[in-house]
Amino acid sequence: MTKKVITFGEVMMRLSPPGYSKFSQATSFELVYGGGEANVAISCAYLGMKAAHVTRFPDNALGRAATQFLRQHWLSTEHVFYGGNVMGKYFLEKGAVHRPSEVIYERAGSAFSLIKPSMINWDDVLKDADWFHWTGITPAVSKGAAKCLLDAIKTANKMGITVSGDINTRGNMWNYGKTIQEVMPDLVKNCDVVITSNRGLREMFGFGQLGKSFQIAASQLMDTFPKIKKVVRKTRNTISASHHQIQGKMWNGEAYIKAEMLDVTHIVDRVGTGDAFASGLIYGLLHYVDDEKALNFATAACALKHTVPGDVNMVSLENVMDLMEGDTSGAIRR
Amino acid sequence: MTKKVITFGEVMMRLSPPGYSKFSQATSFELVYGGGEANVAISCAYLGMKAAHVTRFPDNALGRAATQFLRQHWLSTEHVFYGGNVMGKYFLEKGAVHRPSEVIYERAGSAFSLIKPSMINWDDVLKDADWFHWTGITPAVSKGAAKCLLDAIKTANKMGITVSGDINTRGNMWNYGKTIQEVMPDLVKNCDVVITSNRGLREMFGFGQLGKSFQIAASQLMDTFPKIKKVVRKTRNTISASHHQIQGKMWNGEAYIKAEMLDVTHIVDRVGTGDAFASGLIYGLLHYVDDEKALNFATAACALKHTVPGDVNMVSLENVMDLMEGDTSGAIRR
Amino acid sequence: MTKKVITFGEVMMRLSPPGYSKFSQATSFELVYGGGEANVAISCAYLGMKAAHVTRFPDNALGRAATQFLRQHWLSTEHVFYGGNVMGKYFLEKGAVHRPSEVIYERAGSAFSLIKPSMINWDDVLKDADWFHWTGITPAVSKGAAKCLLDAIKTANKMGITVSGDINTRGNMWNYGKTIQEVMPDLVKNCDVVITSNRGLREMFGFGQLGKSFQIAASQLMDTFPKIKKVVRKTRNTISASHHQIQGKMWNGEAYIKAEMLDVTHIVDRVGTGDAFASGLIYGLLHYVDDEKALNFATAACALKHTVPGDVNMVSLENVMDLMEGDTSGAIRR
Amino acid sequence: MTKKVITFGEVMMRLSPPGYSKFSQATSFELVYGGGEANVAISCAYLGMKAAHVTRFPDNALGRAATQFLRQHWLSTEHVFYGGNVMGKYFLEKGAVHRPSEVIYERAGSAFSLIKPSMINWDDVLKDADWFHWTGITPAVSKGAAKCLLDAIKTANKMGITVSGDINTRGNMWNYGKTIQEVMPDLVKNCDVVITSNRGLREMFGFGQLGKSFQIAASQLMDTFPKIKKVVRKTRNTISASHHQIQGKMWNGEAYIKAEMLDVTHIVDRVGTGDAFASGLIYGLLHYVDDEKALNFATAACALKHTVPGDVNMVSLENVMDLMEGDTSGAIRR
Amino acid sequence: MTKKVITFGEVMMRLSPPGYSKFSQATSFELVYGGGEANVAISCAYLGMKAAHVTRFPDNALGRAATQFLRQHWLSTEHVFYGGNVMGKYFLEKGAVHRPSEVIYERAGSAFSLIKPSMINWDDVLKDADWFHWTGITPAVSKGAAKCLLDAIKTANKMGITVSGDINTRGNMWNYGKTIQEVMPDLVKNCDVVITSNRGLREMFGFGQLGKSFQIAASQLMDTFPKIKKVVRKTRNTISASHHQIQGKMWNGEAYIKAEMLDVTHIVDRVGTGDAFASGLIYGLLHYVDDEKALNFATAACALKHTVPGDVNMVSLENVMDLMEGDTSGAIRR
Amino acid sequence: MTKKVITFGEVMMRLSPPGYSKFSQATSFELVYGGGEANVAISCAYLGMKAAHVTRFPDNALGRAATQFLRQHWLSTEHVFYGGNVMGKYFLEKGAVHRPSEVIYERAGSAFSLIKPSMINWDDVLKDADWFHWTGITPAVSKGAAKCLLDAIKTANKMGITVSGDINTRGNMWNYGKTIQEVMPDLVKNCDVVITSNRGLREMFGFGQLGKSFQIAASQLMDTFPKIKKVVRKTRNTISASHHQIQGKMWNGEAYIKAEMLDVTHIVDRVGTGDAFASGLIYGLLHYVDDEKALNFATAACALKHTVPGDVNMVSLENVMDLMEGDTSGAIRR
Repeated sequence: MTKKVITFGEVMMRLSPPGYSKFSQATSFELVYGGGEANVAISCAYLGMKAAHVTRFPDNALGRAATQFLRQHWLSTEHVFYGGNVMGKYFLEKGAVHRPSEVIYERAGSAFSLIKPSMINWDDVLKDADWFHWTGITPAVSKGAAKCLLDAIKTANKMGITVSGDINTRGNMWNYGKTIQEVMPDLVKNCDVVITSNRGLREMFGFGQLGKSFQIAASQLMDTFPKIKKVVRKTRNTISASHHQIQGKMWNGEAYIKAEMLDVTHIVDRVGTGDAFASGLIYGLLHYVDDEKALNFATAACALKHTVPGDVNMVSLENVMDLMEGDTSGAIRR
Repeated sequence: MTKKVITFGEVMMRLSPPGYSKFSQATSFELVYGGGEANVAISCAYLGMKAAHVTRFPDNALGRAATQFLRQHWLSTEHVFYGGNVMGKYFLEKGAVHRPSEVIYERAGSAFSLIKPSMINWDDVLKDADWFHWTGITPAVSKGAAKCLLDAIKTANKMGITVSGDINTRGNMWNYGKTIQEVMPDLVKNCDVVITSNRGLREMFGFGQLGKSFQIAASQLMDTFPKIKKVVRKTRNTISASHHQIQGKMWNGEAYIKAEMLDVTHIVDRVGTGDAFASGLIYGLLHYVDDEKALNFATAACALKHTVPGDVNMVSLENVMDLMEGDTSGAIRR
Repeated sequence: MTKKVITFGEVMMRLSPPGYSKFSQATSFELVYGGGEANVAISCAYLGMKAAHVTRFPDNALGRAATQFLRQHWLSTEHVFYGGNVMGKYFLEKGAVHRPSEVIYERAGSAFSLIKPSMINWDDVLKDADWFHWTGITPAVSKGAAKCLLDAIKTANKMGITVSGDINTRGNMWNYGKTIQEVMPDLVKNCDVVITSNRGLREMFGFGQLGKSFQIAASQLMDTFPKIKKVVRKTRNTISASHHQIQGKMWNGEAYIKAEMLDVTHIVDRVGTGDAFASGLIYGLLHYVDDEKALNFATAACALKHTVPGDVNMVSLENVMDLMEGDTSGAIRR
Repeated sequence: MTKKVITFGEVMMRLSPPGYSKFSQATSFELVYGGGEANVAISCAYLGMKAAHVTRFPDNALGRAATQFLRQHWLSTEHVFYGGNVMGKYFLEKGAVHRPSEVIYERAGSAFSLIKPSMINWDDVLKDADWFHWTGITPAVSKGAAKCLLDAIKTANKMGITVSGDINTRGNMWNYGKTIQEVMPDLVKNCDVVITSNRGLREMFGFGQLGKSFQIAASQLMDTFPKIKKVVRKTRNTISASHHQIQGKMWNGEAYIKAEMLDVTHIVDRVGTGDAFASGLIYGLLHYVDDEKALNFATAACALKHTVPGDVNMVSLENVMDLMEGDTSGAIRR
Repeated sequence: MTKKVITFGEVMMRLSPPGYSKFSQATSFELVYGGGEANVAISCAYLGMKAAHVTRFPDNALGRAATQFLRQHWLSTEHVFYGGNVMGKYFLEKGAVHRPSEVIYERAGSAFSLIKPSMINWDDVLKDADWFHWTGITPAVSKGAAKCLLDAIKTANKMGITVSGDINTRGNMWNYGKTIQEVMPDLVKNCDVVITSNRGLREMFGFGQLGKSFQIAASQLMDTFPKIKKVVRKTRNTISASHHQIQGKMWNGEAYIKAEMLDVTHIVDRVGTGDAFASGLIYGLLHYVDDEKALNFATAACALKHTVPGDVNMVSLENVMDLMEGDTSGAIRR
Repeated sequence: MTKKVITFGEVMMRLSPPGYSKFSQATSFELVYGGGEANVAISCAYLGMKAAHVTRFPDNALGRAATQFLRQHWLSTEHVFYGGNVMGKYFLEKGAVHRPSEVIYERAGSAFSLIKPSMINWDDVLKDADWFHWTGITPAVSKGAAKCLLDAIKTANKMGITVSGDINTRGNMWNYGKTIQEVMPDLVKNCDVVITSNRGLREMFGFGQLGKSFQIAASQLMDTFPKIKKVVRKTRNTISASHHQIQGKMWNGEAYIKAEMLDVTHIVDRVGTGDAFASGLIYGLLHYVDDEKALNFATAACALKHTVPGDVNMVSLENVMDLMEGDTSGAIRR
């Protein structure tokens, strides 16, 4: 039966000058929408799963247009709430070679940041779901968002739904009076699958050491929070803004597994590639018994996202499987 | 000698779907910048005057791009200040015939709204200026903006600079704890020229009566605030979103003057037409001794703005003079 | 409770040169999707109703993109079927003033034209519906399409769902071996509401006479098919390709009602205006007890569509109500 | 048998900001090509005639692209010559309502202006032609262009080919040392059909008087140059840049004929409308025995051009005939 | 004297989302035209040869626009025939790196597929020609197309015109009741030059063996069909969708020649590269006595096509010669 | 204190087909402005310096739009002069891989080429300046331009302002009656910093020898013209049109310094990269005591320009410093 994934988080308007234009020469912005969790949901939907996203938009034509974007890309939007006046936004100037992409966020006071636990009935939302996914951005947005998220995870636990967290966060976002250390443990400890990095585990929990293996830090995490069954990272070798190398790695309590490294030599859009990895991991763990296969699937999904404009990974299951099975040729399909 | 105009107020990013597209079908936004006072300054600059605008932008690439727009359109930007994180914005969906244009503002927390009197040295800013212009939007933005504006007007008075105010305001913007009635009189009473409407005078000051002549209300205003020498309104006959008729009217204490009505039969962009009127009035009053000429000039400038995309009136002095002198043919110039 | 409308018919890719460009100068096509019945469903959805469309697309990325368009514009797409290889298409060159718009159809062999009754379970599709709408294009497409439609109407009758038909057809489409006269009566006689024209009634059924009142022909239709309760037409005064006048008229068995004529002086997109009328009529008849109100609502919806690019009427309920209540100003909403 | 028209003159690159944008806000130019005589040839080709244009382009990729434009729009380009370094150009800013379109020419030193009589073998060029058309722009370009033109007209006379001249010129172009009065008579006197205006005849030849009928001046022209059989003008009532009224008039030595006036209420592109008139006149005189029909055809062709972007009249014969026969509705053709 | 090439085959409308956009996010399509044989003809024309293409388009504005594309790109279109209702089409989604380009064909019922031998007088078409080129797509389209092609080849043989065939075909296209094996031998045996591949020779004729040298299979072909003088292949090392390596190889009965491999590191448009190879081969064999030079020319032409948007190779003779002579720098030409 | 740079030279309209389109398929041109010296000034401004450019434009809307471009990109335009009728222009077709970019200049008769020494008061222009920069293009344009430049250099010398010259020139531009050898020595000998190449020194002055070190030729230059303190070159390894390697080198009389080579693997826009190098060198020499640092800064600025569309280097000081310090990752900045 088709699996169903639920995600929760802010969706922002993404505004970017066309092509490689700089902000200083833009006379128009290309408009798409994105946000880590919704990106995961949409990418799962393109792989053939059912997916729904829970969020909040302003109650105006902009908020409705954002909802329409989610619907267009196959999400169920029954649990989109409306209120407040401001869409979260980010502005993206695309870099190349040695010139970095520049992102400017405007999230303050957004409709999502004003979300409150009373607005969401998680029992209803999570009914029929197989998987719940969250990221470390959401608890950083506001106290309300963090509380909603905790409710969601606890409800998922109660209902036996698998929970994954892409737990890395951005320190400079935390300005509502709580610290990362106060908020994150309760969220992380109830996960089944955790995506993070050496630095994330060290900075958030003090696990691992600079220069030491991810496996050690991952073990410490699993020892501390025994519900966690898999700790996953994605290493990215940033040769230039136009050329990355991608490789998924996983500690599943028994083995330290590495996927085939993929060489993305001509990047089209770098944003949302981590979310594509997460969506691939969710698909993989739901459809393969072999963790290595799941990890190769996630890495392939991630690599493909670098060639798709926008935040979301609109590639097909067939595309991912071909690459996962080693066809890196991108040979034309007629 | 070339006259110099100074304006003060918020400049917003204007984001609009191309052509007549609706928000629900936009995949890009056209980007220009606008704000009532800056629109006036730029339009004055296109007429050949010197013009500078005082405002505040976020200290990032978006704020710099906004400054670059002002520079591109001939303004001096020495007195643009930087700080805060958010650009004011408005989203514009262009209507036609019976379908109204829709505007969604996002001004909360903008860099400009956080402006403080200590940031601006008005003696320095107004040095060499001939005219200072403001609008009733600015005191509605924030306490700081209102205080900066009051300082500007007082400094202009002190330096003998003519002050004009386009004083109508939007009631729903006033949410920082002061009322229109508390703030506006101090600003209005120090003006030489006031642009307003019957409704504006009635609602702000209780002058005039519904259905009664503008002349009566205008006289009351001038009696109450004797510094004011001219009270001006622009009537707009809104036949449809694509067809307006425009006519300037003025009470100068002696005569009630009406300009020739102009029939704008194929509107290209309706936004900023009031600002074009104000800029025309400033030019007219600075360059003609005859108030009727000045008013005809203002009306012609206003009518022409309806045919220019964006917020600002990029027409030439020659264009306005031709129309003011009765050439409504728009015949091709080779 | 929110009403639910179901429609059935072909959805085509619409390809048009940008702006007023001619086919002979196009280097790109703007892409939207349209089809009379889906246009009605989407327009109903924008007015706040629930709406689902039943159709068939090729089982490839183009068919999925068409589905995504329907989803984006609020339709439920559970009953979109896949198969066959060809998307129906139409090419539209937009005219102006004396130059006619030109439409070139390519529908032969489309996925929809190959639809078969066994593919659709109408009991399931129509569950919870309040209204079923069809047009005279569908029975002209293919024998299969005609048969599916007849099934739908009969099922709707059985389930007590209101049926409306916009019954005019295009004679040159009928080339699968059946005549209009063989097929249409069975479809029309089971309708509650019929939209047609003097010419339509005369040519299809021999009712009315050239130059005689619509009321007479409409009465004959209702006398012959007593299930029909309202016969509606929309008159269009085609002053030029850029200027039409629109007026709805209805015979409801008791009175011949005429809506206020609306003068669309600057047409943006003329396609889909009849479908907007139908959607307005459905909304009106479902929400007003007064037929005249319903007809004014339909006429206002139709007039507004002329200002919206694309096939579908993305205006809000508020827009239609404002116009229906006589505000023709299109004055900007801030 | 299909008639063949030959034209001779400069073809310029036309560069215009998109839509109604002003030069001061352009970040791109739309590119087409145009020139009075080539416009006539292309418009004739769209009406179904054979047409060839004689001109000279720089011998580089820009000159070849200009040739490709002529080929794309059905011209024979065997007699396009190459040499020199500069494309003639004009920049067009499109006006609306009271705002005039602005045209800036850059023709100095163009490849065409350097053309020399020895480059063209008119016997070869005009072989099989039925009609040769020229405009008063060409002799103003350069001494060489004027001489080539005179050769062409004389060769056409010798070969019995009908010659038409749209003889009005622009006084400010004449700067190669010859006057209009020295050059024009030799060109005009060998024409069969002359298109001009009251002002043209008065200024060039001193015929007619301000405020007096065109018929008088036309008679004087025909008396002076008896080869001329028809003198034609097109009156244009310029209500605004967006709305013109067009009417062809002709003195054929016997009657003063007026076409039906056509009301172009929503102008898309005003440039090249005189050339469309000329092409319609050529078609009309070649295909109708009745001068009034020919004149109505020319007026209809002219009116339709106002709705076609670019310099050339890409409408079909059917479009012109429908309008000429009184169908001003522009009703959609499916 | 300038050589003349004739080609015959379907020309399709090519519709592609802009840039790297996916079908699922397209709101417009870029429009060009292409088809293997016409691509060859146009590419030959850009190299300075005369070229004409024989095909059939629907008799409507779309068919005429397709013809105009061929004319724009230098082809003679005297032998374009009109009839039927449908343009052949293909939709192209451009891939990158590991993501394949996706092509969706819609050729069923196209005007070309309905072509009949009686429509074409090959004696007339091939008069003055030096070369006739065909591809293995054409006999797969329909029985009529295959028959027309056979007539063309036989006429060319009779007239002493060199015939080349790019004979590989797509098995899934053959659905009109004949097999590849029934149709192809008659076409191939009358060629002078054959372009194919190891797989092509093995699958079509059973020549060669998997993993064995092309030279062996090519020899078998030449032994079997002694009119064939050169058998050519182009090897493509598909490193990714963005990076290919290209190398021409030829068996001319005496030597197995290999061109310099060219490394195309940043592909702009991969479609039509085989056709560019064929056009280069035709040019080379017509202009060089040395087969190796011809092959290097073909390989260079092919490599350059990967950098040109659209189906056709608009590079100049100078571009190809520079690359063929070893200048791979692409250094800017001023 | 912020340093101020003055430059002098022609600014051209740059017209380029979008993306990788060829001239033969362009239907629009992207419009920016560029010219070697203004490019340097703007790039300096983006690095945070004050900068003004001296030039001459036609006195029309095109000349004003060019000025507006300079203002938009932070230049002071007080010393832009107006007169003449023609904008200098260049057309750029962007190449890729083996396909070269093609540039077509149209500078003949431009407003700038008609500049005269009497138009410029260099004492006024250079007041407060720290640096004056020129290129070898300017003296090639016209006698007037060369004389203006000589005046500028002498005035700068007199005022103690550092002078740099990017002295390479294009031989085919020199057609006003003077030779390179007559004009250049007077210009070069008064420079403090010279940017050139082995070939430049050999061809202009006979210094150095083919295949010999740049150091030798540079020494000869400094021995001959002792005011020169640094002779700088930028080597460019042109792997393809899409991939260059860049390295600055300098002889400062004491050491032959080489910057780190930078590998630009995915070129976005190759034009103006030499100017970016010059601007980086100016910044570096004004802000670092260490010549190697200055050279690394210049090389980094140059490398980054390859990723910015248009002629000018809109990167920030931070971008250049990051790269100069070895961060080649282009990792996204949030």
